Amino acid sequence: MDIATIIGVLFGLVVIVGSIIAGGGAMAFVHIPSLAITMGGMLCATMIHFSLPQFLGIFSIVKKTIVTKIPSSSELIQKMVNYAAINRRDGALALEQEIQNINDMFFVKGLQMLVDGQDSENIRELMSLEIQYLQDRHSTGKKILEFMGAAAPAFGMIGTLIGLVQMLRNLDSPESIGAGMAVALLTTFYGAFAANLILIPLAGKLGIYSKAEVTAMEMITEGVCAIAQGENPTAVREKMQAFISHSRREEVKANI
Amino acid sequence: MDIATIIGVLFGLVVIVGSIIAGGGAMAFVHIPSLAITMGGMLCATMIHFSLPQFLGIFSIVKKTIVTKIPSSSELIQKMVNYAAINRRDGALALEQEIQNINDMFFVKGLQMLVDGQDSENIRELMSLEIQYLQDRHSTGKKILEFMGAAAPAFGMIGTLIGLVQMLRNLDSPESIGAGMAVALLTTFYGAFAANLILIPLAGKLGIYSKAEVTAMEMITEGVCAIAQGENPTAVREKMQAFISHSRREEVKANI
Amino acid sequence: MDIATIIGVLFGLVVIVGSIIAGGGAMAFVHIPSLAITMGGMLCATMIHFSLPQFLGIFSIVKKTIVTKIPSSSELIQKMVNYAAINRRDGALALEQEIQNINDMFFVKGLQMLVDGQDSENIRELMSLEIQYLQDRHSTGKKILEFMGAAAPAFGMIGTLIGLVQMLRNLDSPESIGAGMAVALLTTFYGAFAANLILIPLAGKLGIYSKAEVTAMEMITEGVCAIAQGENPTAVREKMQAFISHSRREEVKANI
Amino acid sequence: MDIATIIGVLFGLVVIVGSIIAGGGAMAFVHIPSLAITMGGMLCATMIHFSLPQFLGIFSIVKKTIVTKIPSSSELIQKMVNYAAINRRDGALALEQEIQNINDMFFVKGLQMLVDGQDSENIRELMSLEIQYLQDRHSTGKKILEFMGAAAPAFGMIGTLIGLVQMLRNLDSPESIGAGMAVALLTTFYGAFAANLILIPLAGKLGIYSKAEVTAMEMITEGVCAIAQGENPTAVREKMQAFISHSRREEVKANI
Amino acid sequence: MDIATIIGVLFGLVVIVGSIIAGGGAMAFVHIPSLAITMGGMLCATMIHFSLPQFLGIFSIVKKTIVTKIPSSSELIQKMVNYAAINRRDGALALEQEIQNINDMFFVKGLQMLVDGQDSENIRELMSLEIQYLQDRHSTGKKILEFMGAAAPAFGMIGTLIGLVQMLRNLDSPESIGAGMAVALLTTFYGAFAANLILIPLAGKLGIYSKAEVTAMEMITEGVCAIAQGENPTAVREKMQAFISHSRREEVKANI
Repeated sequence: MDIATIIGVLFGLVVIVGSIIAGGGAMAFVHIPSLAITMGGMLCATMIHFSLPQFLGIFSIVKKTIVTKIPSSSELIQKMVNYAAINRRDGALALEQEIQNINDMFFVKGLQMLVDGQDSENIRELMSLEIQYLQDRHSTGKKILEFMGAAAPAFGMIGTLIGLVQMLRNLDSPESIGAGMAVALLTTFYGAFAANLILIPLAGKLGIYSKAEVTAMEMITEGVCAIAQGENPTAVREKMQAFISHSRREEVKANI
Repeated sequence: MDIATIIGVLFGLVVIVGSIIAGGGAMAFVHIPSLAITMGGMLCATMIHFSLPQFLGIFSIVKKTIVTKIPSSSELIQKMVNYAAINRRDGALALEQEIQNINDMFFVKGLQMLVDGQDSENIRELMSLEIQYLQDRHSTGKKILEFMGAAAPAFGMIGTLIGLVQMLRNLDSPESIGAGMAVALLTTFYGAFAANLILIPLAGKLGIYSKAEVTAMEMITEGVCAIAQGENPTAVREKMQAFISHSRREEVKANI
Repeated sequence: MDIATIIGVLFGLVVIVGSIIAGGGAMAFVHIPSLAITMGGMLCATMIHFSLPQFLGIFSIVKKTIVTKIPSSSELIQKMVNYAAINRRDGALALEQEIQNINDMFFVKGLQMLVDGQDSENIRELMSLEIQYLQDRHSTGKKILEFMGAAAPAFGMIGTLIGLVQMLRNLDSPESIGAGMAVALLTTFYGAFAANLILIPLAGKLGIYSKAEVTAMEMITEGVCAIAQGENPTAVREKMQAFISHSRREEVKANI
Repeated sequence: MDIATIIGVLFGLVVIVGSIIAGGGAMAFVHIPSLAITMGGMLCATMIHFSLPQFLGIFSIVKKTIVTKIPSSSELIQKMVNYAAINRRDGALALEQEIQNINDMFFVKGLQMLVDGQDSENIRELMSLEIQYLQDRHSTGKKILEFMGAAAPAFGMIGTLIGLVQMLRNLDSPESIGAGMAVALLTTFYGAFAANLILIPLAGKLGIYSKAEVTAMEMITEGVCAIAQGENPTAVREKMQAFISHSRREEVKANI
Repeated sequence: MDIATIIGVLFGLVVIVGSIIAGGGAMAFVHIPSLAITMGGMLCATMIHFSLPQFLGIFSIVKKTIVTKIPSSSELIQKMVNYAAINRRDGALALEQEIQNINDMFFVKGLQMLVDGQDSENIRELMSLEIQYLQDRHSTGKKILEFMGAAAPAFGMIGTLIGLVQMLRNLDSPESIGAGMAVALLTTFYGAFAANLILIPLAGKLGIYSKAEVTAMEMITEGVCAIAQGENPTAVREKMQAFISHSRREEVKANI
């Protein structure tokens, strides 16, 4: 659960919507046809750019970005050190009953291969491929969000051009000029708002989240492979700690 | 047949044209001279930028992007596994009668070389060259579409400047200001519409399509070479499945 | 003679100038001082950016781009195959009288070294250096055109700012506002027109032309070196055809 | 203490604020709701883009950039030459009492490892990791500031669009048009001001500061490792001086 | 003395200032407060971005770019061929009296090392370091000019926003609208003028000048090292001519 994303979106809405309400006449900012042009145009352009499965997959990736919890490094190391101790004391088969306590599917897959007695080289190859496929999915998601962030203001501008042409045709009723122009500007506002508060920052968050998740997965891979080679808990800890900065390293012992 | 492209273009037109009709006076948005400046200017600039064969080739590439069907990976693997079984049972010559059932020219070429008894190294070199020439053609097509996507708004702006200068010369007839300005803005609208709904997204789709087609061709190359080396159906399947994610792999057996 | 460039420029002028004339008052678009600011400013900025020889060299490169004819691959291969046959039959000296029939200076240079009896390594080194110097010249030409394509709209905007300031000082004569603003916009029009129809597309064409010319020169180098090593006509053809796509290859025999 | 940053910010404020006051009516430039939209929107977008610890860490990094003093090269070399002399005369343990005189934590860490008798390879590995983590932190800080520098004008434009729509709805009270438009433009002014005077230049300074700090840390690493290998003061000086230009090198002797 | 820079700046000023004077009311374009905002803001942002020594160093680099004369290749080769002949006839010490006739400090340094009897490897290492430090200085200078070229229009826009807000507050005195807006636009004009005529082209020239100076220094290094290895004048000439195109090479003989 990414708290910064939620705070950012909520406060952003409060700031923008609040300032609109404070200015009076907030209903002037709600205009369904303008919303349809900006968002509809953006979604259509995105569908033309990407394939249907890629387009439909973006929503689940964004949801996962907000909901999933990246396991803390120290927690990962603590667990792996325990498993290393169990492995040396009772053998790999004893790890089977630990698997049920893990939520992370990637971690489960690694332990299962350990229990199945696969050698470390085999495990590393399979887990690295999984990591690469995750990076591909994330990078496609990032590209889709970035494209949407570029398309939203473009269709906002297209909507404003349509509104201006329609307004200019009715210049003989001067009292409607202001209202017509206000409506024309709304699509530009919608596009700029969606791109700068939601789409572009979310693409950035996906990149940062992807990097963190990949690091966690690499730590798990390193730990599982070390256990598969029969290394002792201290060596397992050392190998996993190479991924985090010195100041955040701490002494971890197997407590089982 | 790329369904996302067609849905995107159709819905995009519905959204934009619909909102124009809903606003009334849709005929104000149809102005042939404005269309001529924007599209004519864009096409002329594209012809100056590229060579004549490149310029003429873009339309066939775009058409092929929409019409061609990229073969599904599982279908490709199933076919190749069958051919591997036939090859081991009856020899390479028995594959000759299978060739007629294939539409994909690249696949046909590979099988033909197999039947002709060429060795795997030779086959790989020739097929890799074909893949590289396809990538070159696709990358040129992508560059042309991207250039057109940049040129369309530029000539839209040029058209608007021409319209503004003409309107400003007739300021003494104030009733015509609105109409003159509306016409002047049309070229900018045409340019932005063509670039953001059609040209830029289509350039993106060409890139994604190119990647998918190249992957399919690489899978075919890998399979044909494996058969040429006399590998059994299971080994052929393994080699081709290395190109797709674990979750999409499935058990495929030769059924002939 | 690059037909696409000429068609593009001519039709582009027809489209833009035609739509100006159709709009009436075409003389309003001819304003020498505006032209002087936009083009003069652009040329001065280009002279500050580049050295004097580079600046003066651009015109000859552009001219050469339009006028020079890149020899067709099949013609090059046919000639080289003939020379290989002559070389094997009568020795390298017999090639001397063929040299007069060639227009391409680069080709002449290569054959001359062949006649002089230099070994293939030496020939390759000297011809590669020539290719590299040509690429340098072309890449400088491309950079100059791209800079001019960026400077032209910038000085167009500077001219418009000057015109606006001058017009705003005379707001008390309201009948002149329109005319003043029309003149102010002309520099922006000139800059956008020059950049988008001429300068930017021409820079692109220079890149495509450069690539084609370099490929032809590399084919000549490969052929001359093969003859210098005493290879037979078939081997010479094979080596030169590696540069072109399979579908465009054809059987060529020595006819002398 | 970076004097250029302080001078730049102070003089920049004097120039901009001074010209506002000179123009009269400075209070028209202070509008809290406009400030809330621009800065609030920018901060929210930054929080959505980055993780919470990254977002909160930026302020301490910026503060450190302004306050921290990068040790001069000649000072570093002088100290290290002295330590090399002490090490050769009295052994590494004699360096322990020198550690208290150093403020730089990185330098202290290196000397401590020297006193602890670790070998040079080990020291180099640990110190290189520290340098890499510092570069990561600085590069994240630079990215955050650059994103803020791009988001500030974007939210300035969003604020202006809100203000324009609100103003256009009240066109019937023509006396308020000027005031409404003035307020609407304020957010664009705030965004451009924050981005161009503070955020973008500060991101640049962070990059230059980071490069200087890394060079100093590399010199320290080189010096400490040389001492760990028992090299004499002259050799230590030579190795550290390889990082600075010839003209700035000077003769340094151990004075202890 | 770079003639193109001087011609470009002079003619650029003539074109722009001339067209202002021709339009009448040239004094409207001189406004000290506007100049202070644009140039002051740009300089302050540059100081925040770079360190104080870098900021102060830019002026000397720009001056040197215009004033310094890059020695012609043929002159360099002629001199070096003579020195090679002297060296073979009379020994390296005989070169000492030639040093006084050279202005280029880099050339002097190289010859001095030759006279001091250093070996060619040592000379090459020291001279390469000097070249690298020059490139660093030039590249920093280029970055500063490019940043100034981006900051000038930004502060021009900030100035215009300030002017617009001040003008809009006084809409009740309609006769002042034109004058107020004209002043507001002046800062944008100043920023665009400084960036496009001076700063951006000068950054480009610095890059081209830097490349030419580095080539000259590499030729000197190559020549001095060849003499240090006792090569004959012809070999020295061959090695230095590898840096220039074939068409510009000429037969040079030692004339002493």
